[in-house]
Amino acid sequence: MKVEQDLHMSRGDGETSYAANSRLQEKAILKTRPLLHKAVEEAHASLSGLSRAPAGGKMVVADLGCSSGPNTLLVVSEVLSAVANRSSCDHKSSLVADVQFFLNDLPGNDFNLVFQSLELFKKLAEMEFGKALPPYYIAGLPGSFYTRLFPDRSVHLFHSSYCLMWRSKVPDKLASGEVLNAGNMYIWETTPPSVVKLYQRQFQEDFSQFLALRHDELVSGGQMVLTFLGRKNRDVLRGEVSYMYGLLAQALQSLVQEGRVEEEKLDSFNLPFYSPSVDEVKAVIRQSGLFDISHIQLFESNWDPQDDSDDDDVATLDSVRSGVNVARCIRAVLEPLIARHFGRCIVDDLFDMYARNVAQHLEQVKTKYPVIVLSLKARR
Amino acid sequence: MKVEQDLHMSRGDGETSYAANSRLQEKAILKTRPLLHKAVEEAHASLSGLSRAPAGGKMVVADLGCSSGPNTLLVVSEVLSAVANRSSCDHKSSLVADVQFFLNDLPGNDFNLVFQSLELFKKLAEMEFGKALPPYYIAGLPGSFYTRLFPDRSVHLFHSSYCLMWRSKVPDKLASGEVLNAGNMYIWETTPPSVVKLYQRQFQEDFSQFLALRHDELVSGGQMVLTFLGRKNRDVLRGEVSYMYGLLAQALQSLVQEGRVEEEKLDSFNLPFYSPSVDEVKAVIRQSGLFDISHIQLFESNWDPQDDSDDDDVATLDSVRSGVNVARCIRAVLEPLIARHFGRCIVDDLFDMYARNVAQHLEQVKTKYPVIVLSLKARR
Repeated sequence: MKVEQDLHMSRGDGETSYAANSRLQEKAILKTRPLLHKAVEEAHASLSGLSRAPAGGKMVVADLGCSSGPNTLLVVSEVLSAVANRSSCDHKSSLVADVQFFLNDLPGNDFNLVFQSLELFKKLAEMEFGKALPPYYIAGLPGSFYTRLFPDRSVHLFHSSYCLMWRSKVPDKLASGEVLNAGNMYIWETTPPSVVKLYQRQFQEDFSQFLALRHDELVSGGQMVLTFLGRKNRDVLRGEVSYMYGLLAQALQSLVQEGRVEEEKLDSFNLPFYSPSVDEVKAVIRQSGLFDISHIQLFESNWDPQDDSDDDDVATLDSVRSGVNVARCIRAVLEPLIARHFGRCIVDDLFDMYARNVAQHLEQVKTKYPVIVLSLKARR
Repeated sequence: MKVEQDLHMSRGDGETSYAANSRLQEKAILKTRPLLHKAVEEAHASLSGLSRAPAGGKMVVADLGCSSGPNTLLVVSEVLSAVANRSSCDHKSSLVADVQFFLNDLPGNDFNLVFQSLELFKKLAEMEFGKALPPYYIAGLPGSFYTRLFPDRSVHLFHSSYCLMWRSKVPDKLASGEVLNAGNMYIWETTPPSVVKLYQRQFQEDFSQFLALRHDELVSGGQMVLTFLGRKNRDVLRGEVSYMYGLLAQALQSLVQEGRVEEEKLDSFNLPFYSPSVDEVKAVIRQSGLFDISHIQLFESNWDPQDDSDDDDVATLDSVRSGVNVARCIRAVLEPLIARHFGRCIVDDLFDMYARNVAQHLEQVKTKYPVIVLSLKARR
């Protein structure tokens, strides 16, 4: 697997596309709204102090892992709204309100879809904000956020939602061909401790690399708001996201038993993924010494993207319906990787089975995704 | 016709795509290479003077109308080569060599294709330039260059090749539904003077708007290198590009006679296009008062993109072959507009007929495209 080429959300806007199945990710953006607004205000304030800046006082905002669909422009809209609010409160800052957006994702992302929706977005933004709408410019920036994306000190605010649990690669030793985690695609109950270590080390390397790269790219006073899937359970073998992939591995195992998938194919499928605990995240940030943590928090989001209830009562849940909803959401994220590794022909049946596995699981426990959200300020 | 939605080169990289049929445009980029290199050097030099710039001394380069195909990255490669040369000559400037590219085109352009070729481009650039390769970053920027694309004073160099003969729209009066230029799609022998005036006024409005927008976006000392189809013949009714569209209109007239295209369809098809004379270009620039002309020139390029000869001898030409070559080139540019207006089903036959019309014409006269190239420096 070549992450930079193969990892992208399902393209287009059809029934199984990411654009049509990204409510889970939308909920996270709405949930972290106050934090994003605060970061925009601080970035904007630091800009206002630099009225002598020859660059013309623009604010550069980058969304890392922007995907393609309504969420891509939801982030843009939230930032514009925060700038519009601030400009209306502070007359002095009205001169420095231009916003230049960079929407970043891996090159396989459907940027064409995003670009073709910009005209409608503009009309809606003009209706919503009226005269308060700041001048804004939107560019697409293809590339891995585990590499340099910007010149030195040229960005005021980084935002990233539901992306940083993706690793830059499958840990080398796991990708080498040796079967180290048979029957699994990620850490799960039968995963040996040595494999857990490989995933953890990959996370530490990737995340510290990410922090160093962004620190170079941020201006003085620059901000980051990061949201990604984490782990609440102290037992790394039974993380909440591990269940999600464990049930998908089960569905693949059924296809192996039916002779439709080769066992070796399953054994050689390893996800470039790791969802860390809050402590693991804090440890890497502390060790880097590059950022101050303004805020860190873990919130929970129901597996079923359509389930907005707060209770933990499994009895109120239509588990069959929820199984289908979860499967749609995960398919929109994983289909390109699955289809590339196992072939397109198993995809429909795999996710039907997966929906049933999830439904059965949800009858027992109302499982939730732990989502880590943090706000960082670059140290200088 | 909505230019911002409908105008784009043929997508993908198949047989009839623009990516596979853009040799004509490639030749123009190679021909104007010295001018582009000079402009890069001047932009770079003006940057070196600003060592106190808090923006970090990056050079921002925008290619307006970048299209999708090999030419898109050829421009990037030429700029990198000019920066690499300069950095190696001038040790002082080696600190300010980061280049941030914005590849701009209308939102219908196939940006996905461009983005997916960046990894290969990087490998080739690393091989070609070795250690001299400056750090570079490439973003895609969808939008019309007849609107604002960048914050104030944030760009060092604009480049645009084979785009500025496209208008922002069909002149209003022509687009209103009244038939003013029956049987034609552009200015041609039977076009009334009032319609010629409409096209000319649209050019003047668009080009002066373009100059004003870019002037706002350019830094002090900013440069522009612009290449576009022009007119050499003093008679505006018999411009060289008019012949090209006249022969296509003839093919459409044949389809009208065969009953395959409605006459009203042809009468209501007007191109958002105008190829001006050098004098017309100079007049708009002078009137704007915003730029100094460092260089302006008209060169000629054979209709057949595969014909690299300099002679005007029709006898040496395989006119049938050349007709096919010209038709392929024009199809890659016009197919989206033609298919949208007349329907996809006539496209193959139309361009077969067109190839024959062009072949017949080339047996009489070896026609060439007049190409205007100019280099401008922003006045402050």
